[in-house]
Amino acid sequence: MRRVVIVFFLMILLCPFLLVAQETDDFWNDSDIGISGFHYVNPFIGTTNFGTTNPGAVLPNGMMSVVPFNVMGSETNKFDKDARWWSTPYEYYNKYFTGYSHVNLSGVGCPDLGSLLLMPISGTLEVDYKKYGSAYNDEKAEPGYYSNHLTNYNIQTEVSATRRTSIARFTFPKGESHILMNLGEGLTNESGAMLRRVNDREIEGVKLLGTFCYNPQAVFPIYFVMRVNKTPLQLGYWKKQRAMTGTEAQWDPDNGRYKIYTRYAKEIAGDDVGAFFTYQTKKDEQIEVQIGVSFVSIENARENLDKEQPGFDFENVRYKAMLEWDKQLSRIDVTGGTEDEKTIFYTGLYHLLIHPNTLQDVNGQYPAMESAEIKTTKGNRYTVFSLWDTYRNVHQLLSLVYPEKQIDMVRSMIDMYKEHGWLPKWELYGRETLTMEGDPSIPVIADTWLRGLRDFDINTAYEAMYKSATLPGKENLMRPDNDDYMSKGYVPLTEKYDNSVSHALEYYIADFALSRLAADLGKKDDSVLFYKRSLGYKHYYDKKFGTLRPILPDGKFYSPFDPKEGENFEPSPGFHEGNAWNYTFYVPHDIPGLAKLMGGKKAFVNKLQKVFDENLYDPANEPDIAYPYLFSQFKDEGWRTDREVNRLLKKYFKNTPDGIPGNDDTGTMSAWAVFSMMGFYPDCPGLPRYTITSPTFDKITIHLDSRYYKKDKIEIKIVRPTPNSIYIDKVQVGNKLLPSRFITHEELVNSGVICFILKERE
Amino acid sequence: MRRVVIVFFLMILLCPFLLVAQETDDFWNDSDIGISGFHYVNPFIGTTNFGTTNPGAVLPNGMMSVVPFNVMGSETNKFDKDARWWSTPYEYYNKYFTGYSHVNLSGVGCPDLGSLLLMPISGTLEVDYKKYGSAYNDEKAEPGYYSNHLTNYNIQTEVSATRRTSIARFTFPKGESHILMNLGEGLTNESGAMLRRVNDREIEGVKLLGTFCYNPQAVFPIYFVMRVNKTPLQLGYWKKQRAMTGTEAQWDPDNGRYKIYTRYAKEIAGDDVGAFFTYQTKKDEQIEVQIGVSFVSIENARENLDKEQPGFDFENVRYKAMLEWDKQLSRIDVTGGTEDEKTIFYTGLYHLLIHPNTLQDVNGQYPAMESAEIKTTKGNRYTVFSLWDTYRNVHQLLSLVYPEKQIDMVRSMIDMYKEHGWLPKWELYGRETLTMEGDPSIPVIADTWLRGLRDFDINTAYEAMYKSATLPGKENLMRPDNDDYMSKGYVPLTEKYDNSVSHALEYYIADFALSRLAADLGKKDDSVLFYKRSLGYKHYYDKKFGTLRPILPDGKFYSPFDPKEGENFEPSPGFHEGNAWNYTFYVPHDIPGLAKLMGGKKAFVNKLQKVFDENLYDPANEPDIAYPYLFSQFKDEGWRTDREVNRLLKKYFKNTPDGIPGNDDTGTMSAWAVFSMMGFYPDCPGLPRYTITSPTFDKITIHLDSRYYKKDKIEIKIVRPTPNSIYIDKVQVGNKLLPSRFITHEELVNSGVICFILKERE
Repeated sequence: MRRVVIVFFLMILLCPFLLVAQETDDFWNDSDIGISGFHYVNPFIGTTNFGTTNPGAVLPNGMMSVVPFNVMGSETNKFDKDARWWSTPYEYYNKYFTGYSHVNLSGVGCPDLGSLLLMPISGTLEVDYKKYGSAYNDEKAEPGYYSNHLTNYNIQTEVSATRRTSIARFTFPKGESHILMNLGEGLTNESGAMLRRVNDREIEGVKLLGTFCYNPQAVFPIYFVMRVNKTPLQLGYWKKQRAMTGTEAQWDPDNGRYKIYTRYAKEIAGDDVGAFFTYQTKKDEQIEVQIGVSFVSIENARENLDKEQPGFDFENVRYKAMLEWDKQLSRIDVTGGTEDEKTIFYTGLYHLLIHPNTLQDVNGQYPAMESAEIKTTKGNRYTVFSLWDTYRNVHQLLSLVYPEKQIDMVRSMIDMYKEHGWLPKWELYGRETLTMEGDPSIPVIADTWLRGLRDFDINTAYEAMYKSATLPGKENLMRPDNDDYMSKGYVPLTEKYDNSVSHALEYYIADFALSRLAADLGKKDDSVLFYKRSLGYKHYYDKKFGTLRPILPDGKFYSPFDPKEGENFEPSPGFHEGNAWNYTFYVPHDIPGLAKLMGGKKAFVNKLQKVFDENLYDPANEPDIAYPYLFSQFKDEGWRTDREVNRLLKKYFKNTPDGIPGNDDTGTMSAWAVFSMMGFYPDCPGLPRYTITSPTFDKITIHLDSRYYKKDKIEIKIVRPTPNSIYIDKVQVGNKLLPSRFITHEELVNSGVICFILKERE
Repeated sequence: MRRVVIVFFLMILLCPFLLVAQETDDFWNDSDIGISGFHYVNPFIGTTNFGTTNPGAVLPNGMMSVVPFNVMGSETNKFDKDARWWSTPYEYYNKYFTGYSHVNLSGVGCPDLGSLLLMPISGTLEVDYKKYGSAYNDEKAEPGYYSNHLTNYNIQTEVSATRRTSIARFTFPKGESHILMNLGEGLTNESGAMLRRVNDREIEGVKLLGTFCYNPQAVFPIYFVMRVNKTPLQLGYWKKQRAMTGTEAQWDPDNGRYKIYTRYAKEIAGDDVGAFFTYQTKKDEQIEVQIGVSFVSIENARENLDKEQPGFDFENVRYKAMLEWDKQLSRIDVTGGTEDEKTIFYTGLYHLLIHPNTLQDVNGQYPAMESAEIKTTKGNRYTVFSLWDTYRNVHQLLSLVYPEKQIDMVRSMIDMYKEHGWLPKWELYGRETLTMEGDPSIPVIADTWLRGLRDFDINTAYEAMYKSATLPGKENLMRPDNDDYMSKGYVPLTEKYDNSVSHALEYYIADFALSRLAADLGKKDDSVLFYKRSLGYKHYYDKKFGTLRPILPDGKFYSPFDPKEGENFEPSPGFHEGNAWNYTFYVPHDIPGLAKLMGGKKAFVNKLQKVFDENLYDPANEPDIAYPYLFSQFKDEGWRTDREVNRLLKKYFKNTPDGIPGNDDTGTMSAWAVFSMMGFYPDCPGLPRYTITSPTFDKITIHLDSRYYKKDKIEIKIVRPTPNSIYIDKVQVGNKLLPSRFITHEELVNSGVICFILKERE
């Protein structure tokens, strides 16, 4: 009782006071404001337990990333890329380093990129990664910098990056030393490379990448130029020779082995080729290596390198990387919370800013979508759109904090449509990999527009969205089962693992977003049509099980049915990467309608609570990621959101290598944590609204971009009477109490100050 | 008796008359003079029985050759390149065609080149050569043109060539058709290629070649541009995927197979890649394909193609090839002889003119020797110098009939020294393959100079020759065992199969040639030094066996010794590709000295005769190739030369696919036949002299190049009383009777008319 009184007092006393005094920062304890979020980033978070992030050096949305590659070549590794499904160049608990991979994916579920392996060794030349690899220790990582010590060779390695180039600094022992560039291996399953000596200190080449998620046609080249700052005694190549038989095998000394080319110095090409630079190094001699890349041409890779690193200066590159990260991460300041919580938060923000990546070169050129054509952009052309993941929260967070990036991403998506005829589904360096399902560009673009970010070609965007929403399935790259969907309102199950329900659920949310956009654009009929469609999910609701359930072509439910089938990424009839429980509540645009089907609010809340209580919730994948926020749609049930979000944050997001529950999915898991720790979450794509929950920190300042928003910041202040006060009592937005658990995007960005009053118990 | 009288009468009557009337051609029956040698060439001669020639389309000394490639992929082939030692892209009795290979070696003993396989198919796309190959019939070949009919596909194929480019014309049946460019296979054991789509009708790329005779560092690139004259419905790539294991194998649909790339259109690189052009063809629709190559760059390959074939015109290319061959082959006219003999003769001349090849592009650029540097020549830069073979007779024949070629070849050799520090041994596209042994550039250059062809930098040449003749073995690329050779006068056998005697024999003949050159240049001391050295062969003569015999480091002869050991290309201690019998007489510069060792003329002649009588002579390789001419060094024994040469010509040189006794060795076997059929042979390299024998024809006219020789032709007229008159009775040179069996080069080229009077019996 006393506590309640104190809280009330604080609320009355502090919040109104602050509303008046918000321009002065003298009330709050801002002693740690000088400490940038940069210093809180722990790049090792998510680097095991299938988080598939990595501690490599990268700039925000940089084309280049430099990652310690440690997933092949030795049984001392716990995980080997070739021994199981594997999708990351780095695993925290592995032991065997085989070089730095250049340009990598972070937080994805399929193998690709992670090639151009740069390895320093000492002693006799060895080009077989199964032999030249090394144990290592003393790992250090911060945004834009990574370092380790190769114990087999006593070599200190450090790497940093600019937007499109890398620099490595190797500190060698005395004696024979070599620097290897291995184009034969990497995370990608695509093979084949060509390289060419340019002069004593420079090589250039191209390597094939692709087959992401085993899509055989999703193939693209990476071009590179590599320079060393010391002329080697020898610059040679290697190529693994094809296995021969008979006479040839008898006579060819290199049959089936790595052949060393010491005299040949023109183009070398093959499945498994590389180059070596040989030195005699003095004790502690440092040699630096630069690599510039491009997805357009070798010439552009060279221009990128020339422009971004005119000379060799490791410290300068590292310093500029730090400045850039500091600038980006400083868009949100937080006060309070534990050191771990700050680390989790800023690392989440860091992971948010890794993908999508810069695709265009310094001269603006980029490879057009699904084409050999080269185009030029004046802005930023982004790539790596894992949209089935990121449409849920990544783009909403970008729209809020990094609107200039989000605008360019939407423009990039629309340009892809212009080039290829389709908005992207899962775009990777100019290839539509067609990974996962749905029509996820629609909610991203609609949501961006509806949040007030409108500096893009909405007419073309609408044309593209309308096309995929309405074209017959046969011609429809986004919605191959659109015929049934349009005529019946659902997608029937025609093959056991056709993911039909998941497909339809994606179409529903896309059509909901499209209907809201259409309404905003004055396209009333379209709006009505797509909204109606978005409610088609009801076909799938099966009263018997109380879940969604696949429907057969004859209209009957699929049998035998087990809503739990599909846990732990096992296949499940009708559902993709999940089971009926993970998908049943995924109609965020019509929770009241779903509740009605389920028998009303109470039945809904009980069932949703059961999902959490009986471990039917999967924190490691996207379909049910917003479930905890759904309680808040019902009066007096929002405390459950607070409870579950707090519990999930504590349980699954940690300042440890296993601190992300599953694939980070190019920042989607991280965005969930970042939003949740700030106390609000965009649980319905296409609806410019957040559901609130109790924040983690005492104060959060979001600096807004004045080109897009009227106010220059949002200050979120939290009154937390006790450390255990995890429930929202009241929220004051500007000078009004928030009447519900929802706050619109417009309210948020114009609020100035938001004050959360928390309490210990509901 | 009557016959002798008639012959004498003819001699008296005809030869003097002709000496007067030689400007008028009305006496001789010249009715067939209008028939060019061109029509007598049978490109199928030597295409089986390890002649290793081929019936492909090529210009004289052309860079480009287009050869039906039929040595892999099917058990219907009698010989498979991967099943045994194999060195030719074509075998007459094979059945399975897998495309046209572009740029090939003719008559060599090691595999290389023979790549860029161009294959037309009809029906469903198939890129695996084990499946897409075809049986064929209706082979036709003439200089610069080849044609066949692919029975599996009902496709007529025809090919022709310019100097650096090719053209193919495929006549397709109605339906789906494809044109394949396979860069994954070929005769070379080196692998790896890169190719790139330029536009709908053009691709470009580079393929690695080399490892000739399994020299792993003798590697070089071939660049190409390929064009089609009809836009395909699709242009795609393939690449054989590396075999995967585990999860990757399970998921990758192309694991270990040929993957078809339908969307990717940038650079593709790998061990086994190719491109396909897909058409719907009408019945008998013809599609033409051009390929330009370069050893400098893709740009040069394109320029070569643009300049040599500005448009598609198959007939024009073929016609120009015919004109060029006609011009070159018309340098020698023959009358008389059988049709087969003329065919053998002109085919020999044809084979003589295949190698060495043009290396420079139309813009004069070529790759410098053993370097990545590009240089420019104003003349012709030649490549493919199989000098251990060709120094014996090829360059002597070129000096006589094609002096402008020989001069450029010598200049090329000297330039190689300037670029690389060494004259060539076995040079292949800018690589010193170090195949076979000795110092064979010395006799070639010395011989050329001594024949009066002197328009080259003799000072640099001498510097280069002196270097290899005198540098210690450790630093000596040409003579690695020069220390013992210089100090002891011979090379001892230090390893069983070190070919030590063969090495020394090559040094002796080189030093003999060098001593003659030194004398000519006024370098008396050098001349004496090298001449003395050239007699060191005497160390090897073992009286016990009456042959040369390896010497051990302690100075004793190698035991146990069998002079026959080494027949049929079996290894032999001390001797390379032969046994003691094949080498014992190989001191052509000191036959009198050798005879003395053997116990005089009679012992020598008997022993040499025994070589022929007891099948100790190997007509299939070079060491004993000049043996039949050695009889003529002894008075009254020249008839044995006539007999053996006539016998060997009849037995081993035929107008049949097996019509060359062994590897043609880039024209060396053919040059032996050409010289022998004309009645003279240069049996001692470095000595500008020929040994005569009875010619095959009734009249031979050698048209001389007036830029190099005073007379414009040599007319050789043969009086052959009966068809069996194979022995020389008398020879009249100009207006003098030849007093011996020798004629100097100077006498020959200034003779005007030479009249051979033959007789039936000795």
